[in-house]
Amino acid sequence: MKKEFDLLALGELMLRLSPPDNERITRGETLGKQAGGAELNAITGAAMLGLRCGIISKLPANDLGTYIKNRVRLCGVSDDYLVYDQDKDARLGVYYYESGAYPRKPRIVYDRKNTSVNKLTTADYDESLYEAARCFHTSGITLALSPQLRETAIEMIRRFKEKGAIISFDVNFRGNLWTGAEAKECIERILPYVDIFFCSEDTARLTFLKEGSIREIMKSFTQDYPISIVASTQRVVHSPKRHTFGSIIYSAKDDIYFEEPPYADIEVVDRIGSGDAYISGVLYGLLSKEGDYQRALEYGNATSSLKNTIPGDLLSTDLKEIDGIIREHKSTGRVTEMDR
Amino acid sequence: MKKEFDLLALGELMLRLSPPDNERITRGETLGKQAGGAELNAITGAAMLGLRCGIISKLPANDLGTYIKNRVRLCGVSDDYLVYDQDKDARLGVYYYESGAYPRKPRIVYDRKNTSVNKLTTADYDESLYEAARCFHTSGITLALSPQLRETAIEMIRRFKEKGAIISFDVNFRGNLWTGAEAKECIERILPYVDIFFCSEDTARLTFLKEGSIREIMKSFTQDYPISIVASTQRVVHSPKRHTFGSIIYSAKDDIYFEEPPYADIEVVDRIGSGDAYISGVLYGLLSKEGDYQRALEYGNATSSLKNTIPGDLLSTDLKEIDGIIREHKSTGRVTEMDR
Amino acid sequence: MKKEFDLLALGELMLRLSPPDNERITRGETLGKQAGGAELNAITGAAMLGLRCGIISKLPANDLGTYIKNRVRLCGVSDDYLVYDQDKDARLGVYYYESGAYPRKPRIVYDRKNTSVNKLTTADYDESLYEAARCFHTSGITLALSPQLRETAIEMIRRFKEKGAIISFDVNFRGNLWTGAEAKECIERILPYVDIFFCSEDTARLTFLKEGSIREIMKSFTQDYPISIVASTQRVVHSPKRHTFGSIIYSAKDDIYFEEPPYADIEVVDRIGSGDAYISGVLYGLLSKEGDYQRALEYGNATSSLKNTIPGDLLSTDLKEIDGIIREHKSTGRVTEMDR
Amino acid sequence: MKKEFDLLALGELMLRLSPPDNERITRGETLGKQAGGAELNAITGAAMLGLRCGIISKLPANDLGTYIKNRVRLCGVSDDYLVYDQDKDARLGVYYYESGAYPRKPRIVYDRKNTSVNKLTTADYDESLYEAARCFHTSGITLALSPQLRETAIEMIRRFKEKGAIISFDVNFRGNLWTGAEAKECIERILPYVDIFFCSEDTARLTFLKEGSIREIMKSFTQDYPISIVASTQRVVHSPKRHTFGSIIYSAKDDIYFEEPPYADIEVVDRIGSGDAYISGVLYGLLSKEGDYQRALEYGNATSSLKNTIPGDLLSTDLKEIDGIIREHKSTGRVTEMDR
Amino acid sequence: MKKEFDLLALGELMLRLSPPDNERITRGETLGKQAGGAELNAITGAAMLGLRCGIISKLPANDLGTYIKNRVRLCGVSDDYLVYDQDKDARLGVYYYESGAYPRKPRIVYDRKNTSVNKLTTADYDESLYEAARCFHTSGITLALSPQLRETAIEMIRRFKEKGAIISFDVNFRGNLWTGAEAKECIERILPYVDIFFCSEDTARLTFLKEGSIREIMKSFTQDYPISIVASTQRVVHSPKRHTFGSIIYSAKDDIYFEEPPYADIEVVDRIGSGDAYISGVLYGLLSKEGDYQRALEYGNATSSLKNTIPGDLLSTDLKEIDGIIREHKSTGRVTEMDR
Amino acid sequence: MKKEFDLLALGELMLRLSPPDNERITRGETLGKQAGGAELNAITGAAMLGLRCGIISKLPANDLGTYIKNRVRLCGVSDDYLVYDQDKDARLGVYYYESGAYPRKPRIVYDRKNTSVNKLTTADYDESLYEAARCFHTSGITLALSPQLRETAIEMIRRFKEKGAIISFDVNFRGNLWTGAEAKECIERILPYVDIFFCSEDTARLTFLKEGSIREIMKSFTQDYPISIVASTQRVVHSPKRHTFGSIIYSAKDDIYFEEPPYADIEVVDRIGSGDAYISGVLYGLLSKEGDYQRALEYGNATSSLKNTIPGDLLSTDLKEIDGIIREHKSTGRVTEMDR
Repeated sequence: MKKEFDLLALGELMLRLSPPDNERITRGETLGKQAGGAELNAITGAAMLGLRCGIISKLPANDLGTYIKNRVRLCGVSDDYLVYDQDKDARLGVYYYESGAYPRKPRIVYDRKNTSVNKLTTADYDESLYEAARCFHTSGITLALSPQLRETAIEMIRRFKEKGAIISFDVNFRGNLWTGAEAKECIERILPYVDIFFCSEDTARLTFLKEGSIREIMKSFTQDYPISIVASTQRVVHSPKRHTFGSIIYSAKDDIYFEEPPYADIEVVDRIGSGDAYISGVLYGLLSKEGDYQRALEYGNATSSLKNTIPGDLLSTDLKEIDGIIREHKSTGRVTEMDR
Repeated sequence: MKKEFDLLALGELMLRLSPPDNERITRGETLGKQAGGAELNAITGAAMLGLRCGIISKLPANDLGTYIKNRVRLCGVSDDYLVYDQDKDARLGVYYYESGAYPRKPRIVYDRKNTSVNKLTTADYDESLYEAARCFHTSGITLALSPQLRETAIEMIRRFKEKGAIISFDVNFRGNLWTGAEAKECIERILPYVDIFFCSEDTARLTFLKEGSIREIMKSFTQDYPISIVASTQRVVHSPKRHTFGSIIYSAKDDIYFEEPPYADIEVVDRIGSGDAYISGVLYGLLSKEGDYQRALEYGNATSSLKNTIPGDLLSTDLKEIDGIIREHKSTGRVTEMDR
Repeated sequence: MKKEFDLLALGELMLRLSPPDNERITRGETLGKQAGGAELNAITGAAMLGLRCGIISKLPANDLGTYIKNRVRLCGVSDDYLVYDQDKDARLGVYYYESGAYPRKPRIVYDRKNTSVNKLTTADYDESLYEAARCFHTSGITLALSPQLRETAIEMIRRFKEKGAIISFDVNFRGNLWTGAEAKECIERILPYVDIFFCSEDTARLTFLKEGSIREIMKSFTQDYPISIVASTQRVVHSPKRHTFGSIIYSAKDDIYFEEPPYADIEVVDRIGSGDAYISGVLYGLLSKEGDYQRALEYGNATSSLKNTIPGDLLSTDLKEIDGIIREHKSTGRVTEMDR
Repeated sequence: MKKEFDLLALGELMLRLSPPDNERITRGETLGKQAGGAELNAITGAAMLGLRCGIISKLPANDLGTYIKNRVRLCGVSDDYLVYDQDKDARLGVYYYESGAYPRKPRIVYDRKNTSVNKLTTADYDESLYEAARCFHTSGITLALSPQLRETAIEMIRRFKEKGAIISFDVNFRGNLWTGAEAKECIERILPYVDIFFCSEDTARLTFLKEGSIREIMKSFTQDYPISIVASTQRVVHSPKRHTFGSIIYSAKDDIYFEEPPYADIEVVDRIGSGDAYISGVLYGLLSKEGDYQRALEYGNATSSLKNTIPGDLLSTDLKEIDGIIREHKSTGRVTEMDR
Repeated sequence: MKKEFDLLALGELMLRLSPPDNERITRGETLGKQAGGAELNAITGAAMLGLRCGIISKLPANDLGTYIKNRVRLCGVSDDYLVYDQDKDARLGVYYYESGAYPRKPRIVYDRKNTSVNKLTTADYDESLYEAARCFHTSGITLALSPQLRETAIEMIRRFKEKGAIISFDVNFRGNLWTGAEAKECIERILPYVDIFFCSEDTARLTFLKEGSIREIMKSFTQDYPISIVASTQRVVHSPKRHTFGSIIYSAKDDIYFEEPPYADIEVVDRIGSGDAYISGVLYGLLSKEGDYQRALEYGNATSSLKNTIPGDLLSTDLKEIDGIIREHKSTGRVTEMDR
Repeated sequence: MKKEFDLLALGELMLRLSPPDNERITRGETLGKQAGGAELNAITGAAMLGLRCGIISKLPANDLGTYIKNRVRLCGVSDDYLVYDQDKDARLGVYYYESGAYPRKPRIVYDRKNTSVNKLTTADYDESLYEAARCFHTSGITLALSPQLRETAIEMIRRFKEKGAIISFDVNFRGNLWTGAEAKECIERILPYVDIFFCSEDTARLTFLKEGSIREIMKSFTQDYPISIVASTQRVVHSPKRHTFGSIIYSAKDDIYFEEPPYADIEVVDRIGSGDAYISGVLYGLLSKEGDYQRALEYGNATSSLKNTIPGDLLSTDLKEIDGIIREHKSTGRVTEMDR
């Protein structure tokens, strides 16, 4: 029986405010206004590539909540599972982001305490939710935001798993939300449920205290837990405006590592959400053509690389553009200079 | 002995974010970024007219706090009494404001719970603070924000009074912060200390349950409490873009009411802060020329009327411009079309 | 059996480009970019008030088509019935609009020849379309654009009617698209199918050559054709920035006229789409509470009046705001100055 | 023999810098950049209506001079008689303008001392200049800027007159450039050469110390000097955003006064240059149809009224638009709401 | 006898609309508005360097046509040969351009079908046109737009040639307008008239099916046809933001190839029009100093390289700046960091 | 006895106007508005790092003067020693700056003749000024502006020296203000008073006609004059958007040279003021920790490098950010990608 959604994700939806161009948060007269949030970023990209996606979250029942809801819709992501917080103290998380230029670093100020998403519980949905999706995705940020949201997230993972959904999880460790030890302990509770596991090399070493080569580390997760796929990104930050990006995917069943040459010297416009866009591409690949890990890796790398060139957290692309980028990345012959 | 400041005020400093022109909070891609807050608005205007002013408040020790500090400085208001909240959850209050056009109303979304100013206590300052100013000003908003801040405010009122400062208080009732009954009870605790009392007719009737004519009401406050001056503004909102503004001042000692013809058909650009600007003008008048209530009224009305034409919460003017507006308001002859 | 949509509309979707503020099309360096189109405007408003709405149209399969599709989604209108023109010469209609200020008139330059919507045919949909909606709406603009689109529209009207949908039609006469005589002849072909008929007094007189009072004219339509409801708007253009707006609704079955005092001195920000917004309100009223024509009229008037204050063709509001505007319009007591 | 130009004007070309919307010169982060200058304003309008026009002036040979030259060209005004100042201290006049909103007045800060135009002499041109135009126009501002430029201007007036050109002169008294007495003395030196004389009632009374009714005053100029036409504008400034504008023209030969009802309640966007636009219209009228003073008056009034609604010093219009405005101004029947 | 113009060009004038910065056509709220078109781009640059230039084209008689006319004038290009299309369906070509950043490609959406320029015929001008210019330029785009315009262009080439003008032709092959075979056939019809032939290496190989080295290819054109000069640009696209640009010029009479080291690592701001700017420089060189091909090459390379750094299709420069760039390009010593 | 200021500087305060992004001065519709001036730039940076700073200058008593005063305050620099020019011809210096992109050079147009600062004299202050600061800083620009200002500057240097202040001087040679010979002669008059001497290698060679290695040159200044510290910056301009920056400091007493690896491939956003920012860092270092020249050098290099990434003349940073940049510059291990 066909499920209504290919992919549902749980996470906080935030307002992102950014000074224009190279202006600073401490100065200036305007802020760009955008929507973002790790899981939303990930499924928005997947929706643009063609998956049927929806977001599970709680928004304040005010004009800011309406703004976010409308951005979700604009991206082609379903808002069927957005619920609203009618409390007087309902609030939307906000973050302020300014971009960098060597030697100046990008900066973020978070203002996401006590936000409405933390009140989300399984009581907000009926049981049909868990049968609605082929795949459920969330990240370590959701686990870290508050004890209440953590319990909701873990319970949702359990129920989706029970109803046969593939569980996708991105560690996305943030030292400003919890310690490595807290993260490790909590994530180890959910790893028994996870099918697709996104974890960078640094996080594997620093948070999970893994040792050895990146390939050994990736494999070890699948030995400790019934994880099918481990995906690990490798970003080289030459400067805030120039990155190189590649990744490795490991399939436990086949015991094979998949790789391709990285995208070198990406001309970074906005780096935020490019890690999430990697997930968009990989999940699109895995859910649209089961078992073709090399293709999933290529979609992940191309989608992430492209995201770096798009302003805001959220991707804006379509399958045709990504296919073109992949084709050129693999090409050795003449390529056209522009898409006319 | 000359005190260092003419006027110190206690209040929350906020970030104001507004969509451009007639855009809505629920749409659009940019927000204008400004600083505001009732008491800051009031003393900023007073500083521009020539008083030596400073603000007492607590800001988060992050880039947003720095932004606000710099705006305070820009306005010529001293930041000597700004203290900083180093906590991880330190946060700045934010409000979103969109303007109206008949029949569309202006709208505000507040996001000011748990902000750093609520952690301000008398322990943040040494006793010299209370001797530093000729006049201390605060408003009902400060009392309403939280029980902790209310206690700090009341204690500061007491100490300033004790050191000989004139106490200025603006009721500024906000139904979204507390009930009328709560406000009445709390404000009656501080009225014994108040010298200059700002209270609109509506608030007097609805919150303090006063009856009779506005003149009777104003006088009654001075009969119940040792208040010297009661000032009451009268705004007629023809539409969001057209207001008429006037006021009455009552001097208890002289038992005299001061008035002038209102400013009719003000071309409103940004109405926020115009009530606070009235306080700027009146306090400037009272503190620069003691006992000349008619002049204080004229400064109050002119400064408030002008504020309606200036974008943002904060005034931008100088004494020369206000004097010119007053002169023309009283003039019956030829007036020039522009200031060349 | 509940139908999937309350309201489906057929019409051209256009890109609107406008110089900022009071700039002219002949000058300037930027253009504001918005989506519009008479029928889209009408159902967007209805969707914001709570109806389940979708748009039937054909877009070019290029970036501009994607832009429009995303705006449709953002407004909460379904894009299920948008089809795409893959031809090399596929194009989106564009119009350029500049606003006025007395004595300067607003100006429009159209560039809507040979656009993709004119290729739309009934073959683009299967028969289930006609059972999907409680009400089908289109306007005289759609009939006027090209002979092909006219035939498609008339055939759709027939099929929707056959499947039991209420047929709503707005004359919306445009002298730059066809002559009054052409319009009259064509529209008289479809009036036998129409249930709800929107026609202004001017159009009734000049296009349909009606005589007598507006009330007599409205009634006469229902005598000539099996029309249930005739709605006629009355706009007084004091200047490009100040309008007064009211309307009359006539119910043939009850032989009753419904009216209320007009909204006077509306502070016009963007007049485009305010006629369409009237339809939003009336259809919302009629479809949400059958037979309550006074309420439908009030929704029509309030929604249209509000639209004048919102930039762009498309409304941005919700039921709560419109209910508040209606309440204040009927109120004689104190009203609040802003929505906090 | 047909002359190459209908109209040549002598005057300073300036850079105008204005804060956006209602922002103040003392604040804000951007300034709008425009070209202006009384005589340029006047002939730009005349060029847009169809006269062949050119400007006589001296610009600095730097990027700012290039900017101004390009704006002149854009408006369809010839730059054949622009000469360039190669000196190291060459400079362009600049003025800063902020708009008003009652009770806030518009403000101007001038920075036009020692500008390149003051170095302009008759040596910059050969004698053919004076035969190139049917009409030569300048204003009192040019006379007031410096003694050198005054001598150049007076000499040019003499030479153009000698070669048969009609001499048009606008008093345009500016109290910040010279005193009334200085102006009177200087202008009386040139009045013997003037054919078309623009002088407002206020200036006639305050500068030329005229008494009596405005009609008597206008006539008196033609009695004292061989002036053919006196035109006098009448502006009522209700507020910075609302003006009423009309004028009177007196023909000495016919001893007739021409008038029409004023344009009432103009929705002012940018008032600067509207007096100059009056000259555009009147000169267009007089030079395109000799002797039809009523028509010239109508062009003057319509062009000036329209200018108030156009941002910047310089008009942007064409004959068709002005004809439409005149037609509607005289109409008593139905008028269309917009130009589609 | 001196001709009135150094250079006249025939081509379509278009409105270019671009999202700001790195925004996408599918998103965003504003579009930058500019004028462009291959032949206009080429002669605008030549005019800025000092040639007397004019454009031959047909514009719609509406506000967009006026916009383009004004931009032409602003650039110092004569609009004497612009004619206007009064038809109701008159339209201006539009294209939408978004810039790239590796791995995202620049994108263009064209909307240029059925535009007014296609109605241009030789009947729009009298015969004096063909004697008015020393050189006539057009491009393969003009030939490709429609059969009617192609015939007009070929006829104009013939007539200009007959009257002694140098014929300059840029292949500018666009695969979205016609096939390589169509282009080859058509262009071979006009090559007998061409004196200066611009053709890139790729186009020579792919469209004209030439083989051998670039030098051999260039020479072969002059062997097949009476072409005097062949110029071929060589652009290396390292990424959308970094190009290297050089060229070769071949003089048939002298049988000499002219070259210089390329401009390496150009910091590309807007690449559109840089090929046309090459033509600006070369034609300036050839027409200002006959026979100095090395100098023409240097002007071509410098002007094209500079264009990459200027936003929009149209250059903005002057001879002094280009001379400075050439001087530094050839210099091996100290160069100043900025032009003060 | 503690002095009130760590650092006072004398210099001209200017309005800087810049076209947005890569636009040209000769085009475009807006200019960014900023404050600047070599000495202000230098002490603003020092104030942000923690020194108590004030500026000595004269501003016009108009809205532009107010704008500058407010920017000074915003930066945390004292305006106690700003005096105002009430003359009718009072004016503020202005400069227009556009940025470059290879091969296009940045460009500056100055308009700073006859500005109010040139009227500044020692009579504007009482003698207490000279005792108020630990260090006094000025630059060669101030000496070059006019003979009057030069005398004021030299006299102030003498008096500050007499009262025990450290004298800091930056040659900052500008060929558009004076010749090398003039500069040499004048500066040699003040070198006997200078303690800290900033002079680039180029200037030393071209202006002071020094020969030998840069180290020899630096030392030679301390041999000719009683200078304690010579600091010399070394900027490599790879392109307008990419610089490398380093410096050398020489301590005469210790006869030691201090250096560190330069900041390579700085991603330049706005290069103006980066030389002044070097002075900010060095003076902060020297005045906050006497004798630690290596630390002063590191502060100078980091502050200058950061400035290149901040729009406008004026820095925006704090000690924490600069300390972080220094730490990473010296680090060889993992560094974080952004400041969260």
